[in-house]
Amino acid sequence: MTIPTNLPAVILVSGGLDSAVTLALAKAQGYRCYALSVDYGQRHRVELQAARRVVESIGVTAHKIIHLDLDQIGGSALTDMTLAVPVSGITQAIPITYVPARNTLFLSLALGWAEVLTATDLFIGVNAIDYSGYPDCRPEFITAFETLAKVATKAGVEGGQFKVHTPLIQLTKAQIIAQGLQLGVDFSLTLSCYQPSATGEICGQCDACRLRSHGFQQLGLVDPPLSP
Amino acid sequence: MTIPTNLPAVILVSGGLDSAVTLALAKAQGYRCYALSVDYGQRHRVELQAARRVVESIGVTAHKIIHLDLDQIGGSALTDMTLAVPVSGITQAIPITYVPARNTLFLSLALGWAEVLTATDLFIGVNAIDYSGYPDCRPEFITAFETLAKVATKAGVEGGQFKVHTPLIQLTKAQIIAQGLQLGVDFSLTLSCYQPSATGEICGQCDACRLRSHGFQQLGLVDPPLSP
Repeated sequence: MTIPTNLPAVILVSGGLDSAVTLALAKAQGYRCYALSVDYGQRHRVELQAARRVVESIGVTAHKIIHLDLDQIGGSALTDMTLAVPVSGITQAIPITYVPARNTLFLSLALGWAEVLTATDLFIGVNAIDYSGYPDCRPEFITAFETLAKVATKAGVEGGQFKVHTPLIQLTKAQIIAQGLQLGVDFSLTLSCYQPSATGEICGQCDACRLRSHGFQQLGLVDPPLSP
Repeated sequence: MTIPTNLPAVILVSGGLDSAVTLALAKAQGYRCYALSVDYGQRHRVELQAARRVVESIGVTAHKIIHLDLDQIGGSALTDMTLAVPVSGITQAIPITYVPARNTLFLSLALGWAEVLTATDLFIGVNAIDYSGYPDCRPEFITAFETLAKVATKAGVEGGQFKVHTPLIQLTKAQIIAQGLQLGVDFSLTLSCYQPSATGEICGQCDACRLRSHGFQQLGLVDPPLSP
């Protein structure tokens, strides 16, 4: 499982639980980790503070926070403050917290940075099991992005093959948490809530809070409160 | 050729010649035009002033300028001011003015806005004839992006099919200019140079200047100076 060559990889880190475990996994596999976060006008912008602490705790070669004002586009309860975050439980439909083209943009940013670093490995903590049904978290999206990356870039045209690693995509939230604990991830540094207070107090009722809480419960564990 | 239904479309507008003609074409085809420009830390940021004037001159329903700090990523003479813009003529190789993942990011932004507008038509003025060899200007890139858009979005998953229109992709620069003149595009509002002065004076030597100048020459026309 360990890659001995110290290959560079770009890892998307939001500040949430999943991306923290993804970063820890990439590091454990021997990659030289370049963490990328996006300040996209998200309602839960305080997650970027969590991202900084996660990255510092796990250790990376570099961390960039790229600004991208998706709040100008809106269309999601996470980028348009006039739309309410649903709190009555997870439904079958794709919820209003879906941000149009978000993971396409995030992976494109990761791709751009990877090309500059001459890296061909990208990591994203998407999950298609305990998730909100977002289309850009599914394996078919990842495969289509890899195909695009090949023809979109100088590196691809010149023979490089980008790989988008999604180590959590088929895991339950409980399995992700267990994996993280095994790797020593400090979950008290992570923040998953879609509408935390400015100091990071969670709502406990949004989909992200419910999925996270359910994962810890299944393991018979208590979710640690956010470190001050 | 005219679409009578007043369908919404998102058109990428840089401030250059090609995207001005693309916007004029979309409008002539009957689309309700939403213009999108990106302030990405480009060396030739003054092109955004040209974009504003082009959009105003042709007329659109809305114009957004999205901020995205690609200069944090660099790797291109257009986003890293320590790299010189080549001025000795167009070569076969992909030049240093290539910006990693730029059109992937631009189309992803257009896709996100389109989804919010319930639009499925995107327009981009890429050209694979009189161009600098950028991989993300070629038909195979466009096709791969359409495939991605289908699986990346709520609209796609729910049955929508995004179409990326590239009306200029197989035209010479002279043909693009001729097309624009027919549509009444005022080229004195457009700016193509990669390294203009702060007031928009062109260098006359970069690839973009050369391609543009050659196009006008082929038509026996004089490229009008930038309107003050």
